Amino acid sequence: MDKLRIAQLAPVAMPVRPGEGDSIEQIVSLLTEELVRRGHDVTLFAVAGSVTAAELRPPFARGYRDIEELWDWGVQETLSAAWAFEQAGDFDVMHSHSYHFALPFTRFVSTPVAHTYHVQLGPEVVEGFRRYPEAQLVAISNFQRTQLEGFDGVPVIHNGIDAGAFPFRPERGEYLAFLGRMIPSKGAAEAVRVARELDFPLIMAGPSTDWFEREVRPSIDGRLVRYEGSIDAEGRNELLAGAAALLYPIAYPEPFGLVMVEAMVSGTPVAAFGVGAVPEIVEQGLGGCWVPPGEALAEAVKSAVELDRERVRQAAVDRFDYPRMVDAYEQLYRRLAERSGVGG
Amino acid sequence: MDKLRIAQLAPVAMPVRPGEGDSIEQIVSLLTEELVRRGHDVTLFAVAGSVTAAELRPPFARGYRDIEELWDWGVQETLSAAWAFEQAGDFDVMHSHSYHFALPFTRFVSTPVAHTYHVQLGPEVVEGFRRYPEAQLVAISNFQRTQLEGFDGVPVIHNGIDAGAFPFRPERGEYLAFLGRMIPSKGAAEAVRVARELDFPLIMAGPSTDWFEREVRPSIDGRLVRYEGSIDAEGRNELLAGAAALLYPIAYPEPFGLVMVEAMVSGTPVAAFGVGAVPEIVEQGLGGCWVPPGEALAEAVKSAVELDRERVRQAAVDRFDYPRMVDAYEQLYRRLAERSGVGG
Repeated sequence: MDKLRIAQLAPVAMPVRPGEGDSIEQIVSLLTEELVRRGHDVTLFAVAGSVTAAELRPPFARGYRDIEELWDWGVQETLSAAWAFEQAGDFDVMHSHSYHFALPFTRFVSTPVAHTYHVQLGPEVVEGFRRYPEAQLVAISNFQRTQLEGFDGVPVIHNGIDAGAFPFRPERGEYLAFLGRMIPSKGAAEAVRVARELDFPLIMAGPSTDWFEREVRPSIDGRLVRYEGSIDAEGRNELLAGAAALLYPIAYPEPFGLVMVEAMVSGTPVAAFGVGAVPEIVEQGLGGCWVPPGEALAEAVKSAVELDRERVRQAAVDRFDYPRMVDAYEQLYRRLAERSGVGG
Repeated sequence: MDKLRIAQLAPVAMPVRPGEGDSIEQIVSLLTEELVRRGHDVTLFAVAGSVTAAELRPPFARGYRDIEELWDWGVQETLSAAWAFEQAGDFDVMHSHSYHFALPFTRFVSTPVAHTYHVQLGPEVVEGFRRYPEAQLVAISNFQRTQLEGFDGVPVIHNGIDAGAFPFRPERGEYLAFLGRMIPSKGAAEAVRVARELDFPLIMAGPSTDWFEREVRPSIDGRLVRYEGSIDAEGRNELLAGAAALLYPIAYPEPFGLVMVEAMVSGTPVAAFGVGAVPEIVEQGLGGCWVPPGEALAEAVKSAVELDRERVRQAAVDRFDYPRMVDAYEQLYRRLAERSGVGG
């Protein structure tokens, strides 16, 4: 079996379009488009307005990010998954990127299903997957894999990005960058603190929050520290490539952190707290520098900005350019399809 | 077909036991036990520790109300529903009380399913049910039915209670009662305000919240207004039966309101804001008095406390004693089972 009939299930918060969207949408888009280029028969389940060379089957006319009167986004995700699984017979393999929402359908279809869980695993999600040993879970980092104690056959497949889409600046920039949603756990306040401590200019960008407006923004003077609000992909790329380092002072362990990879492929080293997947994504002294949470981030910044930007870029491209991710998923799909062909 | 094989799907927050639990658990228990008494072959899907004469199939060892490290209770509900539907072949009809969580399985089983939605319907839940015209939705009030515009064949089946379990006090009590979770929409603050305005003692009971501790409790003197914290079923029954009236100053429309029925079968009239299902549950001038939200609740209290407690009780027993609810569901199950027997 050479050509596979593959379904990709995206979350239904927003459309999936090349070069757009949040991390999950970007990954789904890269994976989907590359699988099409490789000759597979791919169907993308994603809301209307998505742009793809695959066959698009939209569960909803619009994403719930744009539904003002929404009470519970989980309803949209579970109904989207249900609708996709009603069509399971059309596929050799299905791949869900929609949190836990595909899991409950495991025993109602014979099509094998891979699940990539793109955010922090809650304890009841781990226990949920434990109830379905036949569900093929994929970990997006070794760190996430460690949270799946006792699970067999869970490969680690790192997320990929389109490295070629990111400009490279060989010369070191004049400012630090902070990019992300302005929630406490992402460390915006710590970023401002470190910039002051080092007297190093800081440019911040990302969607604001009540917390940020109340706790952090009043202390931003617009000179040493600047906040640019939400920016588009082009703005992000410029901000990252032009920076001396990316600050990534997260407080809670995340299973990945695409922005670190985006910075590194632009040649920009990362200065971070070493929690979650950070030590695995940022090779210490090569792609950036990290310290244990709460320790001197300023020291990590001072070391990071001295790193060789060409090496930062090359190491990140080698590890995270998306064809490697697609290779790994493609192999997994083949294995699942063959096993199901034999077993079923 | 006389005897039906019926599955009842309870939420998995807590065990289902006769005379215990929140509103949904109480209704599921009454319905389940009465169906067993009527000779049906009933299976109750509810967490371990539930007490029933039906066959108990527990999806989980404990309810998520007692899981401290819980991130997302929806995971538990969807996995519970999945597990029950994997066993759908065992039943002539299934009845879900678990919000929207059974809906996604509609097209994976041939067993007909009734859904009772016990809380406020979010817009995406209404749209979700619209996607599955074959799902049998039941409205718990005419008010809830009005939120289902364009739906066909949705019967209204009022919730029932075990009227015989509630003591009756013919003489009027000396205090007003407020019973419920201490969230803003239930009107605890308004209840305190009215008690002060009328200089009428008020006894409040129900689980506390941060909001209540911050906004309301500091103003409670323990003399005119008393707060008793969470109370058990016996405490609730005494509190209700001994009151001159139940205050029910809710701010947002609810599809039912079991505590109003509990008060009335104890002979205690209700003084309320007439939103949601209130005007339908409390017959104006018979079971209590209500005014439009924001208008003079004090006037409603003054009229309500003068009502004939024997009549308050009798009217409520006639309308809400549970055998009537079980009759209606039993008829619905027969209709669904017959239709599916003919069609499938």
